[in-house]
Amino acid sequence: MRAEARRSGRPRVAVLSRELILETALKLLDERGEQGAGIRDIARALDVRPSALYNHISGQDDVIAGIRELVSDRIDVSGFGSLSWDDALRQWAWSYRSAFAAHPPTIAIMVVTPLAPKSRTSQMYEAVCAGLIEAGWPEHTVVNLIVSLECFILGAALDHVAPDNMMDPGEDETAPNFVAAYAARASGLPSPEARPTDTVFEMGLEAMLAGFTATFQQLKGES
Amino acid sequence: MRAEARRSGRPRVAVLSRELILETALKLLDERGEQGAGIRDIARALDVRPSALYNHISGQDDVIAGIRELVSDRIDVSGFGSLSWDDALRQWAWSYRSAFAAHPPTIAIMVVTPLAPKSRTSQMYEAVCAGLIEAGWPEHTVVNLIVSLECFILGAALDHVAPDNMMDPGEDETAPNFVAAYAARASGLPSPEARPTDTVFEMGLEAMLAGFTATFQQLKGES
Repeated sequence: MRAEARRSGRPRVAVLSRELILETALKLLDERGEQGAGIRDIARALDVRPSALYNHISGQDDVIAGIRELVSDRIDVSGFGSLSWDDALRQWAWSYRSAFAAHPPTIAIMVVTPLAPKSRTSQMYEAVCAGLIEAGWPEHTVVNLIVSLECFILGAALDHVAPDNMMDPGEDETAPNFVAAYAARASGLPSPEARPTDTVFEMGLEAMLAGFTATFQQLKGES
Repeated sequence: MRAEARRSGRPRVAVLSRELILETALKLLDERGEQGAGIRDIARALDVRPSALYNHISGQDDVIAGIRELVSDRIDVSGFGSLSWDDALRQWAWSYRSAFAAHPPTIAIMVVTPLAPKSRTSQMYEAVCAGLIEAGWPEHTVVNLIVSLECFILGAALDHVAPDNMMDPGEDETAPNFVAAYAARASGLPSPEARPTDTVFEMGLEAMLAGFTATFQQLKGES
């Protein structure tokens, strides 16, 4: 690979771009976790010197912000402004879980990384905030509503990438209700191929949306 | 410390117990993260040889299961059987978030670690399952309901240990709704000292419980 890249007529550095750097960083992160996606690792994977990267990115924090933008780009905000606010949130939430579940190591990083100003991630939030405010949600409730849904979505993304048998109590005569409930869970799946993590996500998301709908109607009644 | 321990009349190894090993492991995990809480690290902290630990624990997986029990012990299940199922879940959920938020590195580990059979963690789940089944929840829904709440609680525990300004959009004229909603968020806090993460947790938890209550009444009406 390296030799081939060097043999080609155009020097490898010419194709370097911010996009290529970030896609490479996300790939390394997926394969090796956070420890394996530093500036040096990215440079090695692209067969360039670390200094060459700094024409396109300002440092590790910028790489993380850029990866977050790549993941955010896959979150569907198209429903805000066209669908009802709850249908728009439903679509947003399912795509949000998929976006993070496709790149498990990003979940733990994103949850502790402050938002990068003026990023495409901010534009994602702008679309959600605009949709909710336009629908009539009081401004002061909007960010809390979004973050509470994000807490659920990120927890559910972690659940999605975990094995299906995480909750298996095994044989345990001291936990008869738990054993019975776990055994009955399989019967509640929509099909034998269905994963319980999807039923869990739907159940929790629908509960939250139903709860928010009740709150919304109450707020409307008061105003 | 080491010298003092050796100077004491009783040999240090005599006080070794499973409980001391697990409490030490949890302390190391909190201080140094997962990489710093291996068997060798625990042995060094206790000033004993690693082999001495194996009289009390079977290995790293057993240590993780034991830490999970320590954290589970702090989850309040006393409401099941005495309070209504939703009040019992509310109490359980708040204590669950506190238990994990007190030990942030445990959150990411627990979410990918299968349940250890016949552990005190299983007993915690037994209490919740028994309470929900007794209240009339259909058996096949119980584990999904618990896991969907756990997704939210674990996400909220991560939010709780993150800085309060994670969502700050800064100055960004391209995101006016987001900037306005973020600024208005502070006005919705119950007091100037209140942390938004607590408002977020309450809002999300109450939405889920309201949604589950609606589902429960619907199920009751059908049966």
